[in-house]
Amino acid sequence: MKRIMLTVAYDGTAYHGWQLEPTGLTVEEVLNGALTGLLGEEIRVSGASRTDAGVHALGNLCVFDTASPIPAEKIAPALLGRLPDDIVVRASREVAPDFHPRRCDSVKTYEYTIYRDTLPNPLVRRQSYFFYRPLDVEAMRRAGAHLVGEHDFKSFCAAGSQAETTVRRILSLSVREDGPFLKIEVRGTGFLYNMVRIIAGTLIKAGLGQLDPEEIPAILAAKDRRLAGPTAPPEGLCLRNIELYPEGFPPELRKGEEDGSE
Amino acid sequence: MKRIMLTVAYDGTAYHGWQLEPTGLTVEEVLNGALTGLLGEEIRVSGASRTDAGVHALGNLCVFDTASPIPAEKIAPALLGRLPDDIVVRASREVAPDFHPRRCDSVKTYEYTIYRDTLPNPLVRRQSYFFYRPLDVEAMRRAGAHLVGEHDFKSFCAAGSQAETTVRRILSLSVREDGPFLKIEVRGTGFLYNMVRIIAGTLIKAGLGQLDPEEIPAILAAKDRRLAGPTAPPEGLCLRNIELYPEGFPPELRKGEEDGSE
Repeated sequence: MKRIMLTVAYDGTAYHGWQLEPTGLTVEEVLNGALTGLLGEEIRVSGASRTDAGVHALGNLCVFDTASPIPAEKIAPALLGRLPDDIVVRASREVAPDFHPRRCDSVKTYEYTIYRDTLPNPLVRRQSYFFYRPLDVEAMRRAGAHLVGEHDFKSFCAAGSQAETTVRRILSLSVREDGPFLKIEVRGTGFLYNMVRIIAGTLIKAGLGQLDPEEIPAILAAKDRRLAGPTAPPEGLCLRNIELYPEGFPPELRKGEEDGSE
Repeated sequence: MKRIMLTVAYDGTAYHGWQLEPTGLTVEEVLNGALTGLLGEEIRVSGASRTDAGVHALGNLCVFDTASPIPAEKIAPALLGRLPDDIVVRASREVAPDFHPRRCDSVKTYEYTIYRDTLPNPLVRRQSYFFYRPLDVEAMRRAGAHLVGEHDFKSFCAAGSQAETTVRRILSLSVREDGPFLKIEVRGTGFLYNMVRIIAGTLIKAGLGQLDPEEIPAILAAKDRRLAGPTAPPEGLCLRNIELYPEGFPPELRKGEEDGSE
């Protein structure tokens, strides 16, 4: 038996998210089917990030165990012909038998893309949120700056989440203009359910002038989901990549270093 | 009766091209249906460019006549809810009753996008041609430079074309690297059937070292389709925009000015 880790990219438009569920097709289910067909044994992958319905990924990770003699590196290219063209396994490698990306220090980078124009653009509709009202980008940046660091993000977590603690650490948050696109990049050591989409919705509310960026510390302190902005739609969100630190975070990523607390 | 011109953007993935045909759904057919529903009279649009199956557009143009009192500018936003999300009418305006973009001096800009990587990227698969072999970009640029100017492009025209003359004029051709993307932009006063895709296929052949860029003048002179490269696949091609010159070309766009001939 050996354990294989896959780097998985997908266009989430057609899927009910990552995780197996009874009501619709999921990325996990399609991967299980393709791997079972390739390796000739029942395979069940376990993912690093359970992305929501409609959310995309360039570098989600998952692991599975197999007795197959196929070299680990050959699995990614061999899957190409067995997967639909909206899911691509970009890399495959062997990891330690007890390794799991969810139980390893990691930094996730998400990007939320807004397409700003008077009318939608059909060529980017699947991977961006069309928004026609003007946004004050500087206000969005000021709001975002208050979220960097370690905070209790209960106000930025969907109701019904079963996370033990709602304290999370955001390492950086940037709002970048790229032609008609506005890209919110968030890097953090962990995220709550819907957290990035609620952050995007809150920044948009600040960009519309409906929320003063200086209110963010009070919104965090209130630990009340109703005070943050709406959950932005899934098509704008992409899990860009997950950096793994099996030996633990290096000093510059350790708690408190980036925000001066501790 | 008044004549309306529409600027139309579409993701061509799901369509059998622009023009009405019996074997599959076309962009023209969907537009006719939406306009007929909106205006309450049978509408038949006439397009500027009959893009192929799978080819995209940001700024194709078409015209139609209507007796409707709806102001021309209101038609584009009113169509939003009547069209599928892969077709968007980006602008609508009234033009002279006898105006047709196909009978007007114009400059069309096409972009052919190649995605270069070892494995495909599902997030860009619909709007780019995945190509994993290394390409010599300088060789592609040298090959492209030989195509600029007025030439008989018979070698770059699909067999079966019924064009009266195969002489066309390319104003500029650039090959630009943008991260993993390679973008071939071609501006010209007219194009033959499949011409941009054959140019892209020929430049790729030069980029692979299978064709010497200095052979291009001889390929043009031979007027033989078999000597140019293959027709690159449709998903990489996008008709970016069409500039119209109802008063005729300005001096800088007149024949011979850009290539030193005449």
